[in-house]
Amino acid sequence: MQQLRENTVFVGNKPVMNYVLAVVTQFNNGAEQVAVKARGKAISRAVDTVEISLNRFLEGVTKKEIVTSTEVIDTDSGKTNVSSIEIILTK
Amino acid sequence: MQQLRENTVFVGNKPVMNYVLAVVTQFNNGAEQVAVKARGKAISRAVDTVEISLNRFLEGVTKKEIVTSTEVIDTDSGKTNVSSIEIILTK
Repeated sequence: MQQLRENTVFVGNKPVMNYVLAVVTQFNNGAEQVAVKARGKAISRAVDTVEISLNRFLEGVTKKEIVTSTEVIDTDSGKTNVSSIEIILTK
Repeated sequence: MQQLRENTVFVGNKPVMNYVLAVVTQFNNGAEQVAVKARGKAISRAVDTVEISLNRFLEGVTKKEIVTSTEVIDTDSGKTNVSSIEIILTK
């Protein structure tokens, strides 16, 4: 995890274009690298975010690395495992 | 894409443990490499499948490569884009 926190886009349950705009804005503001992260069901939307950003808006930006992992989170009914993804985009 | 078709698990809308069982069975039957693929909303379940398989059932198997892409599919209302993921597992 080398990138700064401000160059990370956390994908949740909003419409995908919100996250696309966030990614594109960060690169347009001079970021050399942006991390797109998501957990659970939002993982599909994170992949959509990256695919749409690269295919439609960001020429010369590529996927540097894709990492999946399992995170343990606390819920009211105890600890549970959730899958997560991190996609590193770089100019 | 080097792996044979029979070493591919396509993840869809069934419960995740169905796909975990498919992956584990292929390795137990001697496969050296298994590809887990999914499109659209099933992408999250594909990541779950891989995480559960590796954390709980398959010692010594690792993620070799994760690739995301965009596929164009024909629907009743014309062509549409859908994101896809392919996770290569290897012994």
